[in-house]
Amino acid sequence: MSLNHIKWMNLAILQGFRSKGATGKNPPVGCVIVKNDILLSYGRTGITGRPHAEEEAINNVVDKKNLTESSMYVTLEPCAHKNNNGLSCAEQIYRSGIKEVFVSCIDPDNRTNKKGINFLRKKNIKVHENFMNNEALKLYNGFFSRILFNKPFVSLKIACSLDGKIALKNNKSKWITNELSRSYAHFLRSQNDAIMTSSSTILNDNPRMNCRLNGLEKRSPTKIILDRYLKVPSNYNIYNQSNKKDIFLYSFMEMKHHLTDNKFVKKIIVDKKLNDEDFFNFIFNDLAKKGVNNLLIEAGSIINTLLLSLNLVDELVIFRSGNIIGNDGLPFINSLNFKEINDLTNYKISSIKTFDDNILEIRNLTNKDTSCSQAL
Amino acid sequence: MSLNHIKWMNLAILQGFRSKGATGKNPPVGCVIVKNDILLSYGRTGITGRPHAEEEAINNVVDKKNLTESSMYVTLEPCAHKNNNGLSCAEQIYRSGIKEVFVSCIDPDNRTNKKGINFLRKKNIKVHENFMNNEALKLYNGFFSRILFNKPFVSLKIACSLDGKIALKNNKSKWITNELSRSYAHFLRSQNDAIMTSSSTILNDNPRMNCRLNGLEKRSPTKIILDRYLKVPSNYNIYNQSNKKDIFLYSFMEMKHHLTDNKFVKKIIVDKKLNDEDFFNFIFNDLAKKGVNNLLIEAGSIINTLLLSLNLVDELVIFRSGNIIGNDGLPFINSLNFKEINDLTNYKISSIKTFDDNILEIRNLTNKDTSCSQAL
Repeated sequence: MSLNHIKWMNLAILQGFRSKGATGKNPPVGCVIVKNDILLSYGRTGITGRPHAEEEAINNVVDKKNLTESSMYVTLEPCAHKNNNGLSCAEQIYRSGIKEVFVSCIDPDNRTNKKGINFLRKKNIKVHENFMNNEALKLYNGFFSRILFNKPFVSLKIACSLDGKIALKNNKSKWITNELSRSYAHFLRSQNDAIMTSSSTILNDNPRMNCRLNGLEKRSPTKIILDRYLKVPSNYNIYNQSNKKDIFLYSFMEMKHHLTDNKFVKKIIVDKKLNDEDFFNFIFNDLAKKGVNNLLIEAGSIINTLLLSLNLVDELVIFRSGNIIGNDGLPFINSLNFKEINDLTNYKISSIKTFDDNILEIRNLTNKDTSCSQAL
Repeated sequence: MSLNHIKWMNLAILQGFRSKGATGKNPPVGCVIVKNDILLSYGRTGITGRPHAEEEAINNVVDKKNLTESSMYVTLEPCAHKNNNGLSCAEQIYRSGIKEVFVSCIDPDNRTNKKGINFLRKKNIKVHENFMNNEALKLYNGFFSRILFNKPFVSLKIACSLDGKIALKNNKSKWITNELSRSYAHFLRSQNDAIMTSSSTILNDNPRMNCRLNGLEKRSPTKIILDRYLKVPSNYNIYNQSNKKDIFLYSFMEMKHHLTDNKFVKKIIVDKKLNDEDFFNFIFNDLAKKGVNNLLIEAGSIINTLLLSLNLVDELVIFRSGNIIGNDGLPFINSLNFKEINDLTNYKISSIKTFDDNILEIRNLTNKDTSCSQAL
């Protein structure tokens, strides 16, 4: 028996990450097929979700006879529901002759949940479930959140100085973080399904909110705009996009004439009477319905303060420079009025990277009380 | 020839770090002696500076004949000036029969500067100078600063939340960082010769400012107190110490009666007319004269703001928790009134450690214009 299971599953996970942010509402899956400890093929979920990774990996083997007695490593449970070609992934695995499957995460989707694994076992295929589960979970934080909680996995991006300021007091913020950090922030955009910002950020910075890395332009996320009072004119950069994706505009008010010219802008009216928590929950539920698994938020301190004080941020993505701005600078968060240290919300380190003198900290909310989100 | 030079020098550097903070005004040195790629002995600078590491390493070899044709790895140039026993380290190395010496840093002290190395070479001992210079330099940031700039290497410690706050608005700060961070902060105290704080920090927190790690209590640094108007009563913890070391009190005013009872308190009067920069330079020069190489500062935002705005901080030591306090909390630094991002001072990453959900960032000032401090 091969001792290289970890190596092969890591390769599958890497394949999965190549698809993250580009599979629509489908989960990004990586798959590797190995025989006698030699790589036969690999696959990953296609753009917008098809083909599935298992199907691609199987199809990539030219001489299908080689599949007999081979092993598959796949980051998510093979599906039990029918594919375009009329066959589920579990069925295709069985027909291929594969004799052993390492599965990392169980699919929470009711159409498959454990049914894929049970099918394989009934067909006498050896299944190792939850293999390197923790390592693959980061692929599915968004998918699990949408399926289980009816909301996207919410990542809040902050670019700040050593003392947590996002701009000088005169509003200058170009550039607090360095070019490497900003490039990586574009890469993170490509790994999210949607990016949300607010009217005040648009009016202040006129951002494009797309991914401008060479070769990843098409991975630009869907734009979500919070413009409750329709303050943003239609000539702002955010509305000028080449990828013809829908832009979702959440507002209290009916469409103004100037935006009706842009046929990609889809407006959703939010009830003005909702409190802050219900306002965001309405939007997050609506985005989940639209198939958004991973939502990145790049806004200012008002939105940051609302979301953080409501514990609606699953993941903090903080790029921090090596400069100190001083307390007259603009903070990434406003007052929270805490009276006790023990009342503070805790975010655990998920990963740390350095970019020259900048540090990227990714931290996850830890005090949710459902066991599944703890796993996330 | 051995290919393990890096391994042996790293061992010497580790020996040096065991002495850091405990060698008085002398530099902490580590030394390793190797023959045929086998460790013969090692040594490090003794408490308060004697014996020197080379002498200790040589003395640790029982059968001195073994030293013939051996190699020495030493983190600082062997001294050329006479020791207690009437012999310089260079002379002792020559007499021992050692045939090759790897030296990491050149001693900037005029009594030795290059004279130690030149002596060895004249005696036909092979000397490799500046070997792993960068790796060993962190041992000597304080010593070099004192010798070359007549001031200690100044490290400013900050313990803050993710958004850079050191307390809630009601002043509560126990505990923003976790127990691991606080223990490591005590270890850092043990590696500094002196620790400075201010009257307002003492009056707010009543700190002891000693090292309370098991076995390292004796490594508590010398206390330096800034109490310009003698506001701190004598019954505060800072004046209650068991180690009978001198406490240096910098003040504008003559000693009050209540402090004259404590014979360890040495008062230094500072001219009230000095501006902030000259005030701190006077103190730093005075501490250098007293032999302080490494000075740790643990104070509040007033002192932090003064020192950082004057570029007097060589090293930032930031312990950061995974909590967000909000902008009504107390910042680690007050307003700096910057108008341009390009005017901000830059601190480069020196090292990063994680303690559960806390991060320790150590960052060094990078825009000093002397070549030596860049090397630091």
